[in-house]
Amino acid sequence: MALLARARELEATGRSIVHLEIGEPDFPTAAPILAAGQRALAEGRTRYTAAAGLPELRQAISDHYRERYGVEVPARRILITPGASGALQLATAATIDPGDRVLLADPGYPCNRQFVRLVEGEAVGVPVGPETGYQLTADLVDRHWDERTTVVLLASPANPTGTVLPPQDLAALVTTVEARGGRVIMDEIYHGLVYGAPIQTALAYSERVWVVNSFSKYYGMTGWRLGWLVAPEAGVGAAEKLAQNLFLAASTPAQYAALAAFTPKAAAIFAERRREFQARRDFLLPALRELGFEIPITPDGAFYLYADCGRFTDDSQAFALHLLENAGVAITPGLDFGDHQPNRHVRFAYTNAILCLAEGVERLREALRG
Amino acid sequence: MALLARARELEATGRSIVHLEIGEPDFPTAAPILAAGQRALAEGRTRYTAAAGLPELRQAISDHYRERYGVEVPARRILITPGASGALQLATAATIDPGDRVLLADPGYPCNRQFVRLVEGEAVGVPVGPETGYQLTADLVDRHWDERTTVVLLASPANPTGTVLPPQDLAALVTTVEARGGRVIMDEIYHGLVYGAPIQTALAYSERVWVVNSFSKYYGMTGWRLGWLVAPEAGVGAAEKLAQNLFLAASTPAQYAALAAFTPKAAAIFAERRREFQARRDFLLPALRELGFEIPITPDGAFYLYADCGRFTDDSQAFALHLLENAGVAITPGLDFGDHQPNRHVRFAYTNAILCLAEGVERLREALRG
Repeated sequence: MALLARARELEATGRSIVHLEIGEPDFPTAAPILAAGQRALAEGRTRYTAAAGLPELRQAISDHYRERYGVEVPARRILITPGASGALQLATAATIDPGDRVLLADPGYPCNRQFVRLVEGEAVGVPVGPETGYQLTADLVDRHWDERTTVVLLASPANPTGTVLPPQDLAALVTTVEARGGRVIMDEIYHGLVYGAPIQTALAYSERVWVVNSFSKYYGMTGWRLGWLVAPEAGVGAAEKLAQNLFLAASTPAQYAALAAFTPKAAAIFAERRREFQARRDFLLPALRELGFEIPITPDGAFYLYADCGRFTDDSQAFALHLLENAGVAITPGLDFGDHQPNRHVRFAYTNAILCLAEGVERLREALRG
Repeated sequence: MALLARARELEATGRSIVHLEIGEPDFPTAAPILAAGQRALAEGRTRYTAAAGLPELRQAISDHYRERYGVEVPARRILITPGASGALQLATAATIDPGDRVLLADPGYPCNRQFVRLVEGEAVGVPVGPETGYQLTADLVDRHWDERTTVVLLASPANPTGTVLPPQDLAALVTTVEARGGRVIMDEIYHGLVYGAPIQTALAYSERVWVVNSFSKYYGMTGWRLGWLVAPEAGVGAAEKLAQNLFLAASTPAQYAALAAFTPKAAAIFAERRREFQARRDFLLPALRELGFEIPITPDGAFYLYADCGRFTDDSQAFALHLLENAGVAITPGLDFGDHQPNRHVRFAYTNAILCLAEGVERLREALRG
């Protein structure tokens, strides 16, 4: 955050900054969705929806699970939320009691820990590295489980590492957690942005997982603030009541706009953008390795590369600030993502055209040589 | 909620239901705001804003405090939130620690208690009645304060009672709470919808209060989910960080649309709607009294009448269901608003044209005669 503010300051003075720190796709919302949003406003669709969301949008998402994953998820288990944030908040509030231990990968998305803390749960970061693809494993869960542990929070593709859980690993994780009587909360907000073997939703392996998803990343609707939660049958009532209390409902115009996300026209745009992200990864990954950043495994999803910068520094925060000031390249230091070796890691986001990535790489080359 | 579901069921079978239970203005979003929203989409304004919101919208709200209340509130203390819900969540999370006692009026808006509970605070309903205008008083705060009490949550105009805190009473409350080292969280979401003497924002009496407001009610933007929080100078940083973690930012198109809420054209529409609400109150209040409902004081704000139905029943829940089934009139039983005499109270909302209110009154007359 401080780094982003400093980047803006520098830009205000006329400095050119290459942004490799931004966790938001650079593409505008796709035209069919914009058009649907404008139509919704023209039709005056501005009053509250039900707390669980528009029935037709919940049904569209249910259809999506059947068509894309071959998984039956009835619409009644799907709640529309204000962004994935709203879904995460419902899932954590519904499953975590004060004092409960919640296991998550470290490094990981920082807000996840905050949601756990908000309900007085104890967020326990489990150090992960390249040997497990920066993901939790059934074995790690076994080793860190104790009698106060109740929930395991997974993310695939993950932020900041961009790594995915292969289907069999995900299945083993879900089985292990549930065999211990625990619950899985699964963050799938980067689903769709996958560049290797196909991945599967956790819903394929259990009807008891809580799945968080979003229209922000793959569907390019960040500023609209729209996501969804899939709750287990037994948790739907509680989640709906929580939604009613915590945010009443998600944005009505956004929900109508999102209906267009499931049209063939929009799907073609998303597929094209996915290919563009893949091309960026395929450009940036070898370029960073060549500069001396260690990225031991190829991240197959999202739009992040998590790099070991130990060859250059033992203080990634100072390193990132140095690169910003001297090379005009903004990246995110590891500290934002946890306590496990943050000082020797930085995150690169490829939410920028290849031309800009190339410029960033050249600037880095120059700065790291000096 | 169960009652609303039953009302929808009856309507689905073709029954005509007069809705006097809905806490949402029946007016569509004003045309200038809709147009601004469409313009924002046409311009592709769909990416995240800063967590605290659009600078120009924060400034417009700051100007609004100066022009309407004569109070200086710098834009940096104003955070744009996803509805008043988001603002309430920030305010409660920032001020309440686990175990803290929080005083609120009973009856009151039920979600307020939920936000307190979410952060493991203890929501203490203080019974209020007509003798204090259904509002807390400095004296009530004194009597219910103890060493674990840290926050007092006020609302004016209030839901479900529609009553307002006169400026001098509000000033006394703020002074009393702060003299005890406590914090005031002030819900002002029905400001603007006031039909008696002008009221004042709590910000006029202290720079330490947390004020929650919304574009939903007076500004008619319910489904857009947009509100704001005014934080004390010392709390801005914490609130901004919480916002970043809990919801990233409020809806971008909604924020651009809301800029039009401060134009003269929109203001004229809001003033006209305020007059219409006042006319409805002036129709419904004497009509209900004449039927035998006791409404001992004239509520001067919002769009609610909170009525003692003790003459008809000692079970307002069964009474409301009876009226729904037999008269086709939907009202809200007291149980939704707290523990203080809920069984002899019901809430009427005048979010419906006078013609419909008149039809509702006639149906009630018929049903109560039988």
